[in-house]
Amino acid sequence: MLLAERHPEAALAPKPGSADRATWLELMIYLANTLLPAMRDWFYADVDGDPLGAEAVRALARRRIEEAWDRLDAHLAGGHEYLVGGKLSTADFLAVILMRWTRNMPRPATGWPHLARYIHRLRALPSFVEVNARERLTDWRNGDD
Amino acid sequence: MLLAERHPEAALAPKPGSADRATWLELMIYLANTLLPAMRDWFYADVDGDPLGAEAVRALARRRIEEAWDRLDAHLAGGHEYLVGGKLSTADFLAVILMRWTRNMPRPATGWPHLARYIHRLRALPSFVEVNARERLTDWRNGDD
Repeated sequence: MLLAERHPEAALAPKPGSADRATWLELMIYLANTLLPAMRDWFYADVDGDPLGAEAVRALARRRIEEAWDRLDAHLAGGHEYLVGGKLSTADFLAVILMRWTRNMPRPATGWPHLARYIHRLRALPSFVEVNARERLTDWRNGDD
Repeated sequence: MLLAERHPEAALAPKPGSADRATWLELMIYLANTLLPAMRDWFYADVDGDPLGAEAVRALARRRIEEAWDRLDAHLAGGHEYLVGGKLSTADFLAVILMRWTRNMPRPATGWPHLARYIHRLRALPSFVEVNARERLTDWRNGDD
């Protein structure tokens, strides 16, 4: 959000005062507030809390993560190419990172039909290919699954 | 955040490009991302997840909430009157609401010495008194505890 604000020329967020600004802000907070903490619980329940309770914490985290994918899948089912305002924004970058994190979960994000389409489109972006190259990531690319 | 952006004349957030902007944004996301989800778990673990696992979820939530108060108490110990840039901002409004929610928890936010000072200062604001009057809230006011 700070980067989008500091580099308005990149147009990675709807401008303040524009029609899509509230939707963008709401979605950024939703991803940060619902999905990110559930991901933390899924991967670190036994480190952050009592290992004896980790199974219960992870079960709730999984439920929340899958509910979030249901919600985003339904949104994308309406024919939207990107999450906000028909344009690529920071919300897509954050969402696709979180979707990537599910690749070894019981139900990866690629298992939802509209998320799968969306993931394939985002993974085809030259910037996504470049990030994979720079970070030497060799899974979860188009063609890998 | 949207209200602060739509009403810049109220100066409830550091301006884009200002020195405190990043701190404000970081703290808003921290409150939304760490404290709010932990509060959800504390109050609704048995509704959101399997009631059999609720105790474990609430134990982790309590730990996270108390760690957040430790962190904010340490910040305020440095002599800061408000959370960001020495000025009242939306971060204070969100923080004080979350502190209010702890009033019946095993360790309410008022139990931290610097949070207690901060809470008393915020509760003395005419706007806080007015909100209590409008919402007919008759506990957690200065003088009640």
